[in-house]
Amino acid sequence: MRAHATGVAPTTDAGYILQDAMTRAGARGPSLSPRNRRRERDVPLYEDLARRFARAIESGALRAGDRLPSVRSLRAQERVSTSTVMQALARLEFAGLTESRPRSGYFVRQRRLLPAPGPTRPAPTPRAVTVAPLITRVIAANRDDRLVPLGVSTPSSSLLPVGALARALAAVSRPGLGGAVTYEATAGFEGLRRDIARRALAWGFAADPDDVVVTAGASEAVHLALRAVARPGEIVAIESPAFYGTLQALEALGLRAVEVACHPETGLDLEALERILGEQRVAAVLAVPNFSNPSGSLMPETAKRRLVRMLAEREIPLVEDDIYGDLSFGEGRPPSAKAFDREGLVLTCGSFSKTLAPGWRVGYVLPGRYRESVLLLKFALNVATSSAPQRAVARFLETGAYDRHLRRLRSAVQMSAERMRAAVTASFPGGTRVSRPSGGLALWVELPRTVDSLALYQRALDAGVSVAPGELFGPHGGYGHFIRLSYGHPWDERFSQGVETVGRIAARMAEAGAR
Amino acid sequence: MRAHATGVAPTTDAGYILQDAMTRAGARGPSLSPRNRRRERDVPLYEDLARRFARAIESGALRAGDRLPSVRSLRAQERVSTSTVMQALARLEFAGLTESRPRSGYFVRQRRLLPAPGPTRPAPTPRAVTVAPLITRVIAANRDDRLVPLGVSTPSSSLLPVGALARALAAVSRPGLGGAVTYEATAGFEGLRRDIARRALAWGFAADPDDVVVTAGASEAVHLALRAVARPGEIVAIESPAFYGTLQALEALGLRAVEVACHPETGLDLEALERILGEQRVAAVLAVPNFSNPSGSLMPETAKRRLVRMLAEREIPLVEDDIYGDLSFGEGRPPSAKAFDREGLVLTCGSFSKTLAPGWRVGYVLPGRYRESVLLLKFALNVATSSAPQRAVARFLETGAYDRHLRRLRSAVQMSAERMRAAVTASFPGGTRVSRPSGGLALWVELPRTVDSLALYQRALDAGVSVAPGELFGPHGGYGHFIRLSYGHPWDERFSQGVETVGRIAARMAEAGAR
Repeated sequence: MRAHATGVAPTTDAGYILQDAMTRAGARGPSLSPRNRRRERDVPLYEDLARRFARAIESGALRAGDRLPSVRSLRAQERVSTSTVMQALARLEFAGLTESRPRSGYFVRQRRLLPAPGPTRPAPTPRAVTVAPLITRVIAANRDDRLVPLGVSTPSSSLLPVGALARALAAVSRPGLGGAVTYEATAGFEGLRRDIARRALAWGFAADPDDVVVTAGASEAVHLALRAVARPGEIVAIESPAFYGTLQALEALGLRAVEVACHPETGLDLEALERILGEQRVAAVLAVPNFSNPSGSLMPETAKRRLVRMLAEREIPLVEDDIYGDLSFGEGRPPSAKAFDREGLVLTCGSFSKTLAPGWRVGYVLPGRYRESVLLLKFALNVATSSAPQRAVARFLETGAYDRHLRRLRSAVQMSAERMRAAVTASFPGGTRVSRPSGGLALWVELPRTVDSLALYQRALDAGVSVAPGELFGPHGGYGHFIRLSYGHPWDERFSQGVETVGRIAARMAEAGAR
Repeated sequence: MRAHATGVAPTTDAGYILQDAMTRAGARGPSLSPRNRRRERDVPLYEDLARRFARAIESGALRAGDRLPSVRSLRAQERVSTSTVMQALARLEFAGLTESRPRSGYFVRQRRLLPAPGPTRPAPTPRAVTVAPLITRVIAANRDDRLVPLGVSTPSSSLLPVGALARALAAVSRPGLGGAVTYEATAGFEGLRRDIARRALAWGFAADPDDVVVTAGASEAVHLALRAVARPGEIVAIESPAFYGTLQALEALGLRAVEVACHPETGLDLEALERILGEQRVAAVLAVPNFSNPSGSLMPETAKRRLVRMLAEREIPLVEDDIYGDLSFGEGRPPSAKAFDREGLVLTCGSFSKTLAPGWRVGYVLPGRYRESVLLLKFALNVATSSAPQRAVARFLETGAYDRHLRRLRSAVQMSAERMRAAVTASFPGGTRVSRPSGGLALWVELPRTVDSLALYQRALDAGVSVAPGELFGPHGGYGHFIRLSYGHPWDERFSQGVETVGRIAARMAEAGAR
């Protein structure tokens, strides 16, 4: 039963709840064959069935209160087992799209569909970055285990292959291998660089192991890339909103930031960027083309190509943070901007922190023509990345388990994302807008203007929930009525209640503000 | 038989070959009781006996050609076993101090005693640092396994507790512990910070775990410390000669360097430093008070105290690189400059890279009043140090094996140092001077002025030996007839021949230059 691929089933004219955005994204990936575009590899039958119903609900083909076909009729119609049908129905219910009524069957739930936040329009004025004090406070709060961690964009370790990673680490620690104790090459363990170069094929380009420099996570990769292309006082064009870690790196490096307007779904506004490049001397552009943090935006392939060409004409390097690329909900993976780079001007940064072992700090940069500078900076900074973790990651990758793990992780994260959006929809005040990411780890929530996100952050903390206040995501604040909610955890009652708590507080604040 | 402590044996009026410098150093350590000063803990009887004879030879009490007492008479006189006497005699022979003649006994060898290099007198002019291109070449050469590695100041893994470290790493990788995969706190794993704080007692001061920030090696520690105290363009006062890694960090951070004259044995010339501080706006001083690299100098306790006071009066921070402190050949360990810090102005950096696992990249900084800045910079750079290696180091430290290991390592390294000095003495051209370090991992060799160290470096490479050319150790070259030879390996025929090869090439160059 592959109705989705052949267009037979009654609901195929409708859209997925989240799959649509992914398909848009995925279809642009150069590694995706036409066949892949139509039927996702390795998606179980029940998942396929559930997604078609989700699409139908999302598109309005099935409306609130509509009854779903019975188990028996579905089984016959789809020619699948009872157990497949039951799993599909459970999946829909878990995603908050349907509800079961005793002795009556499954019904589409009443849902509001919140709009996404609008495009941003920051002032095109370069300024020094000052985010450090607030970030310190938020980081400290994020480490409190007693809080519901909606403020941290890190996958829960229950979603990570902890056992297999531990075995990989134990294996590389055997003295006979000899490699764990002595210095690694500054560029990194060759086996890992080979693995990364191989993975780059799925990002849309061919790389050589020598194109890769292993770093302590993507943040160090971005840090080294920025230092290789810009000197203190120079201007870097960034997305608005932008990830606070990046802002902090700019601040630490004494770089000035000019914010570029962004679209909530497609990322960087290239017209706005072009105007800025015409008016100011910009040393580099820093962007997260795939599932930007916090907005979740995904630059279409054409936009990536145009961005790379626009910068190549001006000889301006692009620092590309592709840390969320592997966390696409869709089939395959959207390409990196580097896939369109002919000049070696794109420095692509990534890591295994969002998909394998955050604490191990294994990331990488493919620095293009800036390789020598990056190697020198890396050597001066800390000689080389810690040997044992990078060898353990290589060992894990060589087992071939990474792709299987990624599929499971993406599916789990997508499910949490759906649940979290449903929970926000159910409990946040009127006027709330919420992003519809097709990958990554966070929702970007715009609250009514009267809700101050720092006050909300503080009151949520008091109630046992951490969120990331919008003030963190601009070089000098600026998203004062936004919050970022992260969903890198398996959805459960605790998270559900956490979102509800934040929603309730926000609603009270909105009400008080409206009076 | 503790003749050394009681002053009974016939040779106690003489001096140790290397022990004298250590005793000078060690006696100043605040952790050393008067008793410790006289009889080193855990030194075997044979070692004690060998050292007294070495002292007698060094002082001239026993001269070249003198015959040592027979085994029988030594046994009687010292009231020790035959095996102890034999071991002591073997030790002396191995150190190149004596030779056995068949059927005649042991005789003091003919030795030249090379003088140490003189004090340095750099121009007190701050300048931008430009060392990167040369360093890149040298680093690349250093990674060639086929070379005799006299250019790398890293302990050989055959001297490291590789098996115990592997067990520690395997232990922390167990999934049940849960700590290896998730992010560590930015300051580092608390257990390790506690261990480091405890060890600080031996460095002469009491520290709290919260005073410690774990870093990816000492180089990252120095990097973060420099960034916390100085902005691009500002001036940092450094030793002359100075470690090339530090110079590279200054270059990467856009800091200017002013070189301070140094004494080959006592390090920073405080009068010269005071003049510079009076004339220029210096943002920070960066020094390696314990066993500086490459000179091997050790600042006496009084000098450390005076340095810290001088800087405190001017509110100038001191970045102290104490990476070699644990590699003292003597009893105990010389104190850190931080032992005399009352203002929180000393940022002490160190690591386990020279004593445990270079490749793991586990170091630390105790940043005093700059803690918040360092934490912010660390977070922006790479969030936290890799979890698994720092937990494994903590686990190893908790077994109590570190101190035992250190004693063995120090003894092995000291022995290699002695052998290398003897080999330099035997094979280098007339006019050569060589440092007499009492700790650390390298000899600093001054050649006749006509020998160009870069040419020597290149010719040694061709002959299969890596050395570190003196040009690396100044912010814009400057030690063009010096080389650094590292002895972090168990001495063997290969190293012996390596030194001889370099000496032969240097001798030919000196000869050619003299014509």
